[in-house]
Amino acid sequence: MNAEKIPDIIIGRLPIYLRALQRMADKGMKTTSSQELGEHVGISAAQIRKDISQFGEFGKQGTGYSISYLLDKLREILKVDRIWDVALVGAGDMGHALARYQGFVNRGFCIVLIFDNDKAKVGEKIGNFVIEDTSTMIERIKEAGIKIAMLTVPASAAQEVADKLVQAGVKAILNYAPISLNVPGSVKVQHIDPATHLQRMTYYL
Amino acid sequence: MNAEKIPDIIIGRLPIYLRALQRMADKGMKTTSSQELGEHVGISAAQIRKDISQFGEFGKQGTGYSISYLLDKLREILKVDRIWDVALVGAGDMGHALARYQGFVNRGFCIVLIFDNDKAKVGEKIGNFVIEDTSTMIERIKEAGIKIAMLTVPASAAQEVADKLVQAGVKAILNYAPISLNVPGSVKVQHIDPATHLQRMTYYL
Repeated sequence: MNAEKIPDIIIGRLPIYLRALQRMADKGMKTTSSQELGEHVGISAAQIRKDISQFGEFGKQGTGYSISYLLDKLREILKVDRIWDVALVGAGDMGHALARYQGFVNRGFCIVLIFDNDKAKVGEKIGNFVIEDTSTMIERIKEAGIKIAMLTVPASAAQEVADKLVQAGVKAILNYAPISLNVPGSVKVQHIDPATHLQRMTYYL
Repeated sequence: MNAEKIPDIIIGRLPIYLRALQRMADKGMKTTSSQELGEHVGISAAQIRKDISQFGEFGKQGTGYSISYLLDKLREILKVDRIWDVALVGAGDMGHALARYQGFVNRGFCIVLIFDNDKAKVGEKIGNFVIEDTSTMIERIKEAGIKIAMLTVPASAAQEVADKLVQAGVKAILNYAPISLNVPGSVKVQHIDPATHLQRMTYYL
């Protein structure tokens, strides 16, 4: 297994497999096949076998995949066999929704710092966390050694905040602002932009 | 141009191009090249030319693409040269954030109905809209002829609500619940699942 050689598009499908396998495990299932997994995620069995085989031989001809073994392996490959601390920047509606979201911890993530530049919000609590001033962000993230941030600030502020996150040592940004961010090649960015997802579907209507 | 023949992966990239081109237009730019657009979206110039050429000849060798012309064409192809009415089901934190989100209307979407099954929330207002009871959902969506819904209910309720949306005639569902939905082949589903996006990045950390 060589991290440099696996195409990003394959890496992008692994979390989808992981989510579906977790759901199967939650239902008490022990084994699955590439066909069955494919039906759950809408990807062909051949593609799934090819994707998974990039990382080794995890299934057996005829008996399929052990769900718990494949879950462990996928978590290990994706490095979510641990809990990553996450900083959240922007305590607006979306920031509040993410801060209260229950679905992160059992998938490898925990929001531990929340920032906003609105003095009226600084000091307020969301759940167990106190909203801190963005002016202290670089220092606080560096101290905590945090590598992952979620960005829920307005589009107009997103690039400036992203620059500061990079300066603070963040290597992965989940960007909710509807603009593309310019970051160094060593920093990964993923977008969540509901309008983009909707537009992908209207084509078919 | 034949809708049946364009691979879905290409359709999925068009909204990304649209967003980047809109940003260029907002900055006052008139023309762009596949190279320049590629740098904004992180996709190769060759791939962009190939994707766009599926729909006709929109650029000229040497002079590149007219941004306003390409914007118009992409909006037409993606059918967002109009405003689609959208129903939102689930008025929790995420539902509130989406209901208040300002980024839909200028990209082709307008939330017009909001539902929740919590009697305490029914009748409450979010912006200009009153939260309605999910029990009236099928009828209300049918009456309004709505084809697009956003689903922000808990995972445990998502399939049941999706079944009702399909019954109401919805053809595109943006699903925020972290489970895969079983819907007829004629209904499109897109997932927004922040943990999946985060997991795609931790691989590289």
